[in-house]
Amino acid sequence: MGLRFRPVDTSFYDLFTESANHLVKGADLLAEMLSEGADPVDVGQRMRDAEHAADETTHAIVKRVNSTFVTPFDREDIYSLASGLDDVMDMMDEVVDMILIYEVKELPAGLSNQVEVLQRCAELTSAAMPNLRSMQSLDEYWIEINRLENAGDKNHRRILAHLFSGELKTIEVLKLKDIVESLEDAIDAFEKVANIVEQIAVKES
Amino acid sequence: MGLRFRPVDTSFYDLFTESANHLVKGADLLAEMLSEGADPVDVGQRMRDAEHAADETTHAIVKRVNSTFVTPFDREDIYSLASGLDDVMDMMDEVVDMILIYEVKELPAGLSNQVEVLQRCAELTSAAMPNLRSMQSLDEYWIEINRLENAGDKNHRRILAHLFSGELKTIEVLKLKDIVESLEDAIDAFEKVANIVEQIAVKES
Amino acid sequence: MGLRFRPVDTSFYDLFTESANHLVKGADLLAEMLSEGADPVDVGQRMRDAEHAADETTHAIVKRVNSTFVTPFDREDIYSLASGLDDVMDMMDEVVDMILIYEVKELPAGLSNQVEVLQRCAELTSAAMPNLRSMQSLDEYWIEINRLENAGDKNHRRILAHLFSGELKTIEVLKLKDIVESLEDAIDAFEKVANIVEQIAVKES
Repeated sequence: MGLRFRPVDTSFYDLFTESANHLVKGADLLAEMLSEGADPVDVGQRMRDAEHAADETTHAIVKRVNSTFVTPFDREDIYSLASGLDDVMDMMDEVVDMILIYEVKELPAGLSNQVEVLQRCAELTSAAMPNLRSMQSLDEYWIEINRLENAGDKNHRRILAHLFSGELKTIEVLKLKDIVESLEDAIDAFEKVANIVEQIAVKES
Repeated sequence: MGLRFRPVDTSFYDLFTESANHLVKGADLLAEMLSEGADPVDVGQRMRDAEHAADETTHAIVKRVNSTFVTPFDREDIYSLASGLDDVMDMMDEVVDMILIYEVKELPAGLSNQVEVLQRCAELTSAAMPNLRSMQSLDEYWIEINRLENAGDKNHRRILAHLFSGELKTIEVLKLKDIVESLEDAIDAFEKVANIVEQIAVKES
Repeated sequence: MGLRFRPVDTSFYDLFTESANHLVKGADLLAEMLSEGADPVDVGQRMRDAEHAADETTHAIVKRVNSTFVTPFDREDIYSLASGLDDVMDMMDEVVDMILIYEVKELPAGLSNQVEVLQRCAELTSAAMPNLRSMQSLDEYWIEINRLENAGDKNHRRILAHLFSGELKTIEVLKLKDIVESLEDAIDAFEKVANIVEQIAVKES
């Protein structure tokens, strides 16, 4: 009789992919929120639903970590990655909520560029999650997210310089600055996810 | 002759509990600062004392990590938890200091709700620390802190929306926004502590 | 024949020192930016060059981690330290960029104190990196950075209180606050580096 290995639970890869797919959905809702003729209240409701769905996936991952004997990589890394993905969703939800409750009328030029960066980050993250299984192509994902984050950073400062140019009422500047910074935080949160993935890849390689 | 085990140093649990108790004290001082008829300078002095006492506990933990051979869980986790607890104290101290040096006259409605969240977080954290020994009931603690942080987050955005409503002078809005954000940071710092505890529990289970 | 050990790759210490030296350069450029009669555009260009050079050192470290069999300490710690050092550079570069694009005319008193803190942190970090080899004197470095960060923190709040005193136009306050906060973030990032070093020392001791 041959040696029998306890099979590693591979459903983690599916759950991480599911988690990243919620982010694709969230980024798309953010883009819809900014689009001409959108119904902000309706988009806000759907964003809240998407955020709840993302929470459930996160809880499913945490529960599985606690009940699985052999995990495909370190328990604490699984936990970090799940939290990191969840953080992005929370931040995108926050942006939508801010636009609603601050009663912002006009959003500054350049904002849609940032949302495009978020959409691109979400797609890349979603495509990278299944590669955790083979640990292939994760370098390219990490490099590309870092490049996007740098571009977002430069764009972010340009938007702020525009807000500070003196055309707007100062209280409006304050509101918009808050929203713009939350978008930037969401992009940074994608970079943090990529850094966690890179650290897992470094460890397991 | 039986096997002899080197006993694990259990005083870490006491030190973590001591550290969390400083946070209970700090949150109570913050509540006092906001209460009718408080003497801000006197509260500020007592907060500074509490912060120094917390520093000493943190140093005691770090020193013990460096001099103990068998620690109850990973040295770097002990270190993270000690730093995380210390960060909360620094942030609560910062809020008190800001109220003093910005010479704020009137604090916005909703602030005392945030301080109540902090008090509740401090109590839960203090009650959870002794459970590190048995690793029991830590899930409930983590879930409850996360729930409180979410509630605090929603409350936070409502306070900001109120600040942005146009009733106040913009420079006052700036001051208050800074204070409100530091409160939010303190709540987030409690969540970070809970996340560290959860990660320790996941690892050790 | 005696036992042969695979020699540990010691070039990591040199690369970390190189990385920290870029920070000394960056902090000096920041000081130059603030000095009387500086050419902001020229300083900005040299800062960008310094930032690119720092990026290259970071990439060299990450590449070496991936291709080295026996590392002097845990791969993920090497990675964290490299990222931490790189973050400081990004933040100093950001400050210079903000001063340029926000078209700030006058910088508030107290700013040069913060830049001096940054210069001191950079020198201490640069001096500490070679000590990773022997793991000696790292405690003093960590304690001193923490002391500097506390001093910077207090100074930071005094600068803000000055900005909020009502002498300046509110939109100018907003610009300056952003710059002052990025300086503070850079100081915090030095503390994060010191914390990573301390965690490595705790682990390896």
